[in-house]
Amino acid sequence: MLNIGIIGAGRIGKVHTESITRFVKNAQVVAIADPFLSDTTIKWAKEMGINTTYKDYKKILEDSNIDAVLICSSTDTHAKISLEAIACGKNVFCEKPIDHNINRILEVKKALENSNVKYQVGFNRRYDHNFKAVKNAIESGKVGDLEILKVCSRDPEAPPIEYVKVSGGMFLDMTIHDFDMVRFLSNSEVEEVFAYGAVLVDEKIGEAGDIDTAIITMKLENKCLAVIDNCRKSCYGYDQRVEVFGSKGQVAISNDTQSNAVVSNEDGVSAEKPLLFFLERYMQAYVNEINKFVECVRNNTKPTVGVEDGLQSVLIGLAAQQSIESGKPVNVKEFAKKFNI
Amino acid sequence: MLNIGIIGAGRIGKVHTESITRFVKNAQVVAIADPFLSDTTIKWAKEMGINTTYKDYKKILEDSNIDAVLICSSTDTHAKISLEAIACGKNVFCEKPIDHNINRILEVKKALENSNVKYQVGFNRRYDHNFKAVKNAIESGKVGDLEILKVCSRDPEAPPIEYVKVSGGMFLDMTIHDFDMVRFLSNSEVEEVFAYGAVLVDEKIGEAGDIDTAIITMKLENKCLAVIDNCRKSCYGYDQRVEVFGSKGQVAISNDTQSNAVVSNEDGVSAEKPLLFFLERYMQAYVNEINKFVECVRNNTKPTVGVEDGLQSVLIGLAAQQSIESGKPVNVKEFAKKFNI
Amino acid sequence: MLNIGIIGAGRIGKVHTESITRFVKNAQVVAIADPFLSDTTIKWAKEMGINTTYKDYKKILEDSNIDAVLICSSTDTHAKISLEAIACGKNVFCEKPIDHNINRILEVKKALENSNVKYQVGFNRRYDHNFKAVKNAIESGKVGDLEILKVCSRDPEAPPIEYVKVSGGMFLDMTIHDFDMVRFLSNSEVEEVFAYGAVLVDEKIGEAGDIDTAIITMKLENKCLAVIDNCRKSCYGYDQRVEVFGSKGQVAISNDTQSNAVVSNEDGVSAEKPLLFFLERYMQAYVNEINKFVECVRNNTKPTVGVEDGLQSVLIGLAAQQSIESGKPVNVKEFAKKFNI
Amino acid sequence: MLNIGIIGAGRIGKVHTESITRFVKNAQVVAIADPFLSDTTIKWAKEMGINTTYKDYKKILEDSNIDAVLICSSTDTHAKISLEAIACGKNVFCEKPIDHNINRILEVKKALENSNVKYQVGFNRRYDHNFKAVKNAIESGKVGDLEILKVCSRDPEAPPIEYVKVSGGMFLDMTIHDFDMVRFLSNSEVEEVFAYGAVLVDEKIGEAGDIDTAIITMKLENKCLAVIDNCRKSCYGYDQRVEVFGSKGQVAISNDTQSNAVVSNEDGVSAEKPLLFFLERYMQAYVNEINKFVECVRNNTKPTVGVEDGLQSVLIGLAAQQSIESGKPVNVKEFAKKFNI
Repeated sequence: MLNIGIIGAGRIGKVHTESITRFVKNAQVVAIADPFLSDTTIKWAKEMGINTTYKDYKKILEDSNIDAVLICSSTDTHAKISLEAIACGKNVFCEKPIDHNINRILEVKKALENSNVKYQVGFNRRYDHNFKAVKNAIESGKVGDLEILKVCSRDPEAPPIEYVKVSGGMFLDMTIHDFDMVRFLSNSEVEEVFAYGAVLVDEKIGEAGDIDTAIITMKLENKCLAVIDNCRKSCYGYDQRVEVFGSKGQVAISNDTQSNAVVSNEDGVSAEKPLLFFLERYMQAYVNEINKFVECVRNNTKPTVGVEDGLQSVLIGLAAQQSIESGKPVNVKEFAKKFNI
Repeated sequence: MLNIGIIGAGRIGKVHTESITRFVKNAQVVAIADPFLSDTTIKWAKEMGINTTYKDYKKILEDSNIDAVLICSSTDTHAKISLEAIACGKNVFCEKPIDHNINRILEVKKALENSNVKYQVGFNRRYDHNFKAVKNAIESGKVGDLEILKVCSRDPEAPPIEYVKVSGGMFLDMTIHDFDMVRFLSNSEVEEVFAYGAVLVDEKIGEAGDIDTAIITMKLENKCLAVIDNCRKSCYGYDQRVEVFGSKGQVAISNDTQSNAVVSNEDGVSAEKPLLFFLERYMQAYVNEINKFVECVRNNTKPTVGVEDGLQSVLIGLAAQQSIESGKPVNVKEFAKKFNI
Repeated sequence: MLNIGIIGAGRIGKVHTESITRFVKNAQVVAIADPFLSDTTIKWAKEMGINTTYKDYKKILEDSNIDAVLICSSTDTHAKISLEAIACGKNVFCEKPIDHNINRILEVKKALENSNVKYQVGFNRRYDHNFKAVKNAIESGKVGDLEILKVCSRDPEAPPIEYVKVSGGMFLDMTIHDFDMVRFLSNSEVEEVFAYGAVLVDEKIGEAGDIDTAIITMKLENKCLAVIDNCRKSCYGYDQRVEVFGSKGQVAISNDTQSNAVVSNEDGVSAEKPLLFFLERYMQAYVNEINKFVECVRNNTKPTVGVEDGLQSVLIGLAAQQSIESGKPVNVKEFAKKFNI
Repeated sequence: MLNIGIIGAGRIGKVHTESITRFVKNAQVVAIADPFLSDTTIKWAKEMGINTTYKDYKKILEDSNIDAVLICSSTDTHAKISLEAIACGKNVFCEKPIDHNINRILEVKKALENSNVKYQVGFNRRYDHNFKAVKNAIESGKVGDLEILKVCSRDPEAPPIEYVKVSGGMFLDMTIHDFDMVRFLSNSEVEEVFAYGAVLVDEKIGEAGDIDTAIITMKLENKCLAVIDNCRKSCYGYDQRVEVFGSKGQVAISNDTQSNAVVSNEDGVSAEKPLLFFLERYMQAYVNEINKFVECVRNNTKPTVGVEDGLQSVLIGLAAQQSIESGKPVNVKEFAKKFNI
């Protein structure tokens, strides 16, 4: 039985806690730490059978009974806590992104090189039934040699402007999942990226120095071309699709819905909107990724989504930001040299 | 070049005339007869390049230059004109049903036995791209041994009550196409039929002694079970689907639409309604069936939809009517004995 | 916290135990009884945190600490255990069917009249997301007055012949869910039923006196017509669909799949088969129905699927069997008189 | 009745001739000119009722009886014949592209400024039922303010390498339709274009100096972002889709198929591939565009797809080519200055 400590009891920390308690075999949450620990949170933890709650996450790191931690705190603390947890020999599941700053991610990467700690990054979509089906189709050879890879990713609502300001920008906050998906599906690194961004949803997002709509194109090292389109607001809901086109075929996924009921009447033929947002859409993927993490720790195998994946996705995101700023395509390897990578 | 005379210049007579003129190779309409021949009809005929128009269809039968006739007049005249045309040695394409009266159909059948006339009945759906695809799937073995055959057939609007009164009842007027489809797809005769009917659309239809909604189940001679559901009014439009289920698979068709555009918005995900009604939905099938008829006449081959098909569909329709009246299933062969078949 | 005892630790008993443990709020399984209690079962129970296991279910009935029982034993014991549980004042969730024998169901019904026990029957499909969406569409008025109701229900594989022999026949074993669905969706009782049955899947099923393929038509008391088509074997998997047609519209559901990935290649455009069978397809529905049962017990409200629903579905099933045997439609009310209902 | 002369009796010239003869009201083809006029072509023309055939298209231009010409000859002659036809006062329908050379298109544009000739360019997709449905959805306000526009356009097979060499490059030969679609749907000009191209289908295409796969992104003057993805070979057939996303909704179209039959079996659920290629897919669009042209000539109204549309699409195509060559985005207005536009 793997003993897990949860660091950060916000929305995603609670999701992981509940899914581990209900679904994850061979693991249990034994302690929760949150700097804003409230009575509500303590009560919720007790209902989940977790009696140990702290304000200070260091108590978790110090607990020799704990085998692994889930870092679900605010993004600016991910790298710092990662480093401390690695130093304490705790296995780490870290929510994405590891950091907005490449150098801090590199510190984590370096720390890992000298440790036996398992380190997994929370790119949950890799564990989603639909995205996995696309990956399986590719790996089974049904698509042949990849030629074009398209990711469509649109949120139902823009986040609050206060969140936008600290989000690291749309590319690091939202598109980062799509960059990871391009790498995951193509099994290739990104050679060059070019991005068009626009402020079409909310002027305040533009005033905050960010964009809310983008099309990002990429040349991959395996010669395949890729494109992501993003928008912070999609009135019909959370739109999450990919299409992969190759020499032997194409595979595509559409959105999941609450039911597949279709109503036909005088106005036409109507189906349901997509599932509301990531918690509804990726609930099972959150379970799957932790199951996989627990399995890696228990079997002493390397997590499939590691620090390098966390690093590359941020690197591409920053390169895409630079493309917007410069109005030119950015070679990712050249860009990486800035950071001595 | 096959010279064709059109008998009856109502809606369906015009459809055939226009489609022959535009699409049917090796055939031309040379004369049109209609008892209510109006100036509008004469003008329309001239625009189609047809200068010979009559009130009396016998002029067409007497014209030795005419090779074939299309009987598109009112149902009560189909058998009579068929007999006269056969006597004149004209090849005949007759709109469905041949007659509401089995004995009159038998007279046509008998007349054909002693002639070389090609006789085709207007079961146009057999020539529709979707229904043909189902037939092809069955014949290619994809479905295996047939087990269940389902036909859904719903009209967009009930016909005028005056039409209902002379229609011969819903089973002979509307379901007759579905009975033919069951026979066509199953390649089997109907052994027994049981029907539930109801008046749910318009009370006046009930007062006229007819029904507007029905579910008809059948045991086929090949052991397969079949079911038809009908309604005279479907608010979302003309609903024409079949599903065939067998030991190796299932094949199903859905409705055709004007476009496949799908709109997603706050209210959901919406597609178009089916094409309005039979003229829109089966336009190409009308062309195809006449092409096939012309081919049979020119190549001296037997039409695939002959008088026997016209006979059986009416026989099943009358048996289904008797099932409604008696509240019991009706064995079709037993029922046929009434008519010495 | 509601304390639940599980009677019968076969497949469905285990499904309920696991789903209660993981998902059902305010309830816990405290004891399990199974006449064939094996070490494997005891071990499984311990993993679920359940330390009390019996061979004799009466131990559960005698335990004053237990508030409710789930009867998941073999069908022939449902009524007997129901009666005993009611006598002990235990709330009861009983798997379908209550019994194959109407008189025994009536005994349960009578026992309930003199008790405060909550009694729910396991028609899980009523709690499925897709079927609920159909029900919601009807209740919201989107369909208008119901006219035609179609249920398609096909199993992926016929059960072992030994099971078939004690199953009570396809109508009581399999179609019973569909009869309940007709009643649930139509909110009406069945007036008359007519059935065609056939042995098309496996001759041995016929030799055992049962059928494996059927089309059942019904006239409902609300004037709506209904039809169910069944087959014990569908090579493409578990096929569970309904379509409801009315004066204002139509609503239909299709099958759920593991993913919605679609592959296009030289051979065509391919999607996945339906989810394998009921455990995969209705997993969430099993959770939902127990949640609802717990809610009813805790809030002292009447279960929405009660003994009357268990009774009517068996009654219609037996009437359908009689229709097959007699070759005639059967009036359900008349048929019920046999049992003094 | 509008008298039309066809210049160029290749594939597309024959398509137009046949569709005018069958479907286009108020117009007739009276003469055909083709430099390689063969006996087969003469025979075919006679079958269509056209007895006047020439080798020299100038005979058509000189015929005062002819009101309009369709220029269906090889691309390098389009501009030259356009100029001559305009000089002769013939109304012109010109296949796309007008020319690969902007200056020659500008000559045609200038010639038109001083004439009353109607000039329409063959962007047939604007007249297709699906693309029109998207346009209608946008114009009706269902999409709101446009934000992202995606065009997917993939051919079933790469053209012969000899064709590739004279095609003007993929952007002018194939993508030109997609550039026009972006302009048509967005009702906006393209501000800037950036393209990634690759040779993934056939190395010989690369050796010929062309590409076979591309993703082209665009910033439009209305602030909307657009992306086109192209491939010269799609093993599942002709793939022609668009998706338009805006503040109030999204509208998307999928491919048309020969039938909508779906087969379910042990391998999954399969539908048909898209219609083979442009002749099958856009047959009705070819009819519609000529109908529209005839209407414009007869009613003395301006064609909706004129020389400016022909000019802009080539301009964007050349700008996209320059983007590939330079590896940088190209501002279309700046680029146009090269041509003094």
